[in-house]
Amino acid sequence: MSGKVYLIGAGPGDPQLMTLKAARALGLADVVLVDALVNRGCLAHARSDARIVEVGKRAGVGTSQAFIEKVMIQSARKGHTVARLKGGDPFVFGRGGEELQALLAADLEVEVIPGITAGVGVPAMLGIPLTHRGLAHGVTFVTGHGVEVDWASLVRSGATLVIYMGLKNIVRIVAALKAAGMDPATPACVVEDGTLPTQRQAISTLGSLSNFGFSGPALIVVGAVVGLSRASVQPRAKAA
Amino acid sequence: MSGKVYLIGAGPGDPQLMTLKAARALGLADVVLVDALVNRGCLAHARSDARIVEVGKRAGVGTSQAFIEKVMIQSARKGHTVARLKGGDPFVFGRGGEELQALLAADLEVEVIPGITAGVGVPAMLGIPLTHRGLAHGVTFVTGHGVEVDWASLVRSGATLVIYMGLKNIVRIVAALKAAGMDPATPACVVEDGTLPTQRQAISTLGSLSNFGFSGPALIVVGAVVGLSRASVQPRAKAA
Repeated sequence: MSGKVYLIGAGPGDPQLMTLKAARALGLADVVLVDALVNRGCLAHARSDARIVEVGKRAGVGTSQAFIEKVMIQSARKGHTVARLKGGDPFVFGRGGEELQALLAADLEVEVIPGITAGVGVPAMLGIPLTHRGLAHGVTFVTGHGVEVDWASLVRSGATLVIYMGLKNIVRIVAALKAAGMDPATPACVVEDGTLPTQRQAISTLGSLSNFGFSGPALIVVGAVVGLSRASVQPRAKAA
Repeated sequence: MSGKVYLIGAGPGDPQLMTLKAARALGLADVVLVDALVNRGCLAHARSDARIVEVGKRAGVGTSQAFIEKVMIQSARKGHTVARLKGGDPFVFGRGGEELQALLAADLEVEVIPGITAGVGVPAMLGIPLTHRGLAHGVTFVTGHGVEVDWASLVRSGATLVIYMGLKNIVRIVAALKAAGMDPATPACVVEDGTLPTQRQAISTLGSLSNFGFSGPALIVVGAVVGLSRASVQPRAKAA
């Protein structure tokens, strides 16, 4: 009898932003596979005798996807309950889809527990209303680590842009958005370590966007709604 | 001394998909203002002596935004701790931005607690990986209750489309997407009451999309990633 596998989103950083369901599933697990970007505070909900497997990957370097899938499948086939804890939400830039396919192909029982993705949770800390009436009809989440994104269409769509993993390519991304006709005066910000005590942010404009010396996990938000951030409208208010 | 106001996202439906932080803040509140679409199970975390104010609004009909803001401000000025509980995330089609602005203008202390937005939480129940590698570089959340959306640019962008409140306009939305060049064979689905025990879904294609007789709160997902849903690839697996 195989054990069940939980594919769990740990949320954007702050362990208190995990769901009740995620915390409960962690407490059931014999084996917990945890990503490098997941705050270790989340593991407080795991059993003290659970086997914790660090399967960290930063900027694509680290444990291979094949290894992660192998450990999950082997553990579940031994009858163990497995929790796979991923940063944010498993299905938003999390490769959770690949892991789900592998687990289903192995004929295992899998439950997906969604999490707050950074693109939702981090702007909330700054009071940025992603889809504020009159400013944005929608919001798009994209990755900035590749070159495949059709920035011109996204600019034309008028949706707020939330860019994951874009810090290293920020110069190229800014150039692409300006070339697509986005006004350089459009409000924009970069947030490092969002929702954690180490959070830092720079509120700026598209034309003045840079990496601001940040090097940790960062989120970029571009659009008129950034102009409503508490840092902009209430300089005396703290970010969170 | 004014009380603090918590603007809280209750998540997509299932009360277990609230965050630990949201549950804790609810337990602190003297007054809880709760939207119609929030599952009543979420109120289990409120104090038994808390005043519960139903400020429901379905399809734009119900309590006025001005009344909601007035109750929050008056309660906080009396020194009460106020929890404003909204479906999904407060800043994703939640009008939380307007409420935050009103509260800050009243010089009140406000803490925003994000929640899992339906666009993330509901597809997870079907095993739909919104940004699966090779299929979608990003995901866009838009509302389908208006006509302002630039569907053509969104189709060109190649992002998975998640449409909130689109059920009533589904015929018009499908026509707009097809007119913009989207292949009618593109996988698409409609999910009603997502994450709740009453969840129902129809997995289909853009060309065959209809309201499928649903009339409750529904989410529409359009894109190749819908083809990976558990309902599609594993007909014998249950949706959740």
